[in-house]
Amino acid sequence: MNTNATGTPASDAKDIPRVGWIGTGVMGASMAGHLLDAGYEVTLTTRTRAKASTLLDRGARWADDPKEVAQRSDIVFGIVGFPSDVRQVFLDEHDGVIAGLSPEGILVDMTTSQPSLAVEIHQAAKRRGLHSLDAPVSGGDRGAREGTLSIMIGGEDAPVERVMPCLKCFGKTIVHQGGPGAGQHTKMVNQTLIATGMIGVCEALVYASRAGLDLPTVLQSVSSGAAGSWSLSNLAPRMIDGDFDPGFFVEHFVKDMGIALAEAKQMNLSLPGLALAEQLYLSVMAKGGAKDGTQALVRAVADLSGMDWN
Amino acid sequence: MNTNATGTPASDAKDIPRVGWIGTGVMGASMAGHLLDAGYEVTLTTRTRAKASTLLDRGARWADDPKEVAQRSDIVFGIVGFPSDVRQVFLDEHDGVIAGLSPEGILVDMTTSQPSLAVEIHQAAKRRGLHSLDAPVSGGDRGAREGTLSIMIGGEDAPVERVMPCLKCFGKTIVHQGGPGAGQHTKMVNQTLIATGMIGVCEALVYASRAGLDLPTVLQSVSSGAAGSWSLSNLAPRMIDGDFDPGFFVEHFVKDMGIALAEAKQMNLSLPGLALAEQLYLSVMAKGGAKDGTQALVRAVADLSGMDWN
Repeated sequence: MNTNATGTPASDAKDIPRVGWIGTGVMGASMAGHLLDAGYEVTLTTRTRAKASTLLDRGARWADDPKEVAQRSDIVFGIVGFPSDVRQVFLDEHDGVIAGLSPEGILVDMTTSQPSLAVEIHQAAKRRGLHSLDAPVSGGDRGAREGTLSIMIGGEDAPVERVMPCLKCFGKTIVHQGGPGAGQHTKMVNQTLIATGMIGVCEALVYASRAGLDLPTVLQSVSSGAAGSWSLSNLAPRMIDGDFDPGFFVEHFVKDMGIALAEAKQMNLSLPGLALAEQLYLSVMAKGGAKDGTQALVRAVADLSGMDWN
Repeated sequence: MNTNATGTPASDAKDIPRVGWIGTGVMGASMAGHLLDAGYEVTLTTRTRAKASTLLDRGARWADDPKEVAQRSDIVFGIVGFPSDVRQVFLDEHDGVIAGLSPEGILVDMTTSQPSLAVEIHQAAKRRGLHSLDAPVSGGDRGAREGTLSIMIGGEDAPVERVMPCLKCFGKTIVHQGGPGAGQHTKMVNQTLIATGMIGVCEALVYASRAGLDLPTVLQSVSSGAAGSWSLSNLAPRMIDGDFDPGFFVEHFVKDMGIALAEAKQMNLSLPGLALAEQLYLSVMAKGGAKDGTQALVRAVADLSGMDWN
């Protein structure tokens, strides 16, 4: 989006939506910051006000709860923690977003959450004459910072078009996947791919280690061909270095796998690879790794064979 | 390798090794062809002579068995089917390669085979004053045709250096991984990565399909980020199209997984992801898919949930 000299979006002022933002964690803070950079008027709230201080210093306005954010906005984005948080933020009759938005207002849930909850929120919004989109992202804290997120959208066409200029402030691959819930379903597809692929990366490294191979040399042979993946190129080197700092927390990934498996069960789907991944990640959690990065899976896989990884 | 006007390698003639080749299947025929292109004198044998006819027309010489190939060669390459074939080609006392090579001769097994068999062959070769390398490849028929294979080498330094000019005729990523068996172990790492990753790709597509998503549109969202992999980019589109033509046969992949799991068991390693992949691929075999491409796994994964994939 182009901005003019005074920092407001360079389109006719009456078309510029007032933006609300809920949730200023690692992801949300960067994303809301891009909207401020683009000149949007942003009203926000978050559980811990201190986490919003930088954004407030940069001109964002504080509101005390999601309903108040909604009352002062045309479009409200949320990116919070768990589906229970999503439910409270958007659906709470007392201080939720839907209770505060004016007719034709749009709410956009960017939390990775349940597809079925996205449908429920959509229906509740519709009853009030509002629009609802589910739009979870992938790309991590780095994608949020650099504005290169992949955004997977579920919902109707008109609101997608309306929010697109905002999404372009922090997204690079922005795809409308279908009706309500389709964004969340697509995110579950994404997480299923990552989860099962991570088992392969960990088992491969554990095998190589036990076979006495030099792990970085092995990566030279296997990274660029048919065995190659983002996880292998980006996380295997960190596993080899014993670097378990979080790019993405184990506990958040476990949440996502739980959602995917519950939705799969509702759809009568058997996904043994994803179920195995969940079990192995639960073992990481059981041994105190909830706040490690997802690459810590290698410890649990090594431990199956009595190996201390690092 | 540079060649001069008469098609022989452009180095001093007395340094140019006479090359033997055993096995002219899809991979071997292309690879041996590159050696002919580079001007090497190639003597070959294969189980079905008709499969060598093009190479013979191009100047390769026929021998009746591996021993005779070895008697007329300084370096003998083999790329055959199963470990039992490898054992016969190299170790058979009557007509195997080791029985025919002159002292200082080098044998190179490029079949994907058992690391422990590679060690056994190395020891047998050493007792006869010969050198042995295990050098399995990845990159498939296309990599063989285009000369862009990844070659993973196990063995001692001197013979690796000696065969390198030959390997460069068909390899792009050529890495000496360690002592005898290290090439095969690295290939097992490669196959472990592919096998488990394939479960993820198949479960992701089956989930997406059951959720009612448009599969090519889903790939737009998930292919280029943290969920991305070679298998997702190259095989998922073929799964979506119902194209199960073999790039790599299911039955060969099942052989490889069997080797990896047996070696892992010998090393006291628990690899539940790879074991699951083997079981699912055995289901593909059980339903007549032995000669399908590895992407046929999606049928077995879909079938778990009572879905007919294509």
